[in-house]
Amino acid sequence: MLNKSISSTHKAYLAGFLDGDGSIYVRLKPNPTYRYGFQVAPYIVLFQSSKSRVQFEKICTLISLGSLRERKDGILEYTIGREESLKCFLKWVKPYVILKRAQVELMQEIFHAKSKVKDKNDFAALMKLIHSFEELNYSKKRIQRRLTP
Amino acid sequence: MLNKSISSTHKAYLAGFLDGDGSIYVRLKPNPTYRYGFQVAPYIVLFQSSKSRVQFEKICTLISLGSLRERKDGILEYTIGREESLKCFLKWVKPYVILKRAQVELMQEIFHAKSKVKDKNDFAALMKLIHSFEELNYSKKRIQRRLTP
Repeated sequence: MLNKSISSTHKAYLAGFLDGDGSIYVRLKPNPTYRYGFQVAPYIVLFQSSKSRVQFEKICTLISLGSLRERKDGILEYTIGREESLKCFLKWVKPYVILKRAQVELMQEIFHAKSKVKDKNDFAALMKLIHSFEELNYSKKRIQRRLTP
Repeated sequence: MLNKSISSTHKAYLAGFLDGDGSIYVRLKPNPTYRYGFQVAPYIVLFQSSKSRVQFEKICTLISLGSLRERKDGILEYTIGREESLKCFLKWVKPYVILKRAQVELMQEIFHAKSKVKDKNDFAALMKLIHSFEELNYSKKRIQRRLTP
């Protein structure tokens, strides 16, 4: 596991920023090259108007676990998508996060369950955990993925 | 000055939340009962969906310097508007804020200038400082208030 170190006030700052403006979710992407037909794709994304690019880049540099892109509508997105990077970020913010505490804990639970998958039943249980993310995030666009029989 | 104490990680969390989701601005409200014809009305506002009310209330309780209301569109607004409360909040977040550093420093400068106002020229200079807030906040709706001659 990545074990980058930052100060406790930086960790708390990032927890506050994630609570205010961030998004944390896991997608199940149909992909036949994966053993159970789905790729598990977890994300943490921070957003900001490109008008604050210089200062937002300071936050991105502080994190240094993801990548920055500018959307066509002028919004900057800093995305953390690699599992090791996400585990590191979750560990940083967990002691301080307030609004998204349930999401932080659920993503950690999903990583744990994913590492223990041995058969189709285990994967079905993992999918169920992933679907419970949508309830936490109040997603309107729910796609219930199912394993092909 | 209010001198409430919270931990450094709570201060850093609030700086992150303000940077992610908060708003900091000063309005000049025409009001003939004030000496120079305007009320100086400073605000810091934090927002959240009312779906996260329970957790958002934890943040409001931590701050305990403002008041919470629910807008008709379901957004919760926690507003700090009293000068002594704002000075306290600004002091907390100043060491940690990144995106809104210029706004935090400008509001402190405005409070300082306001306390020194002795005549119409001083008040005109204060109004100029307040107008520079709009540039920082990229406001499209700029109303240039002027002193009546």
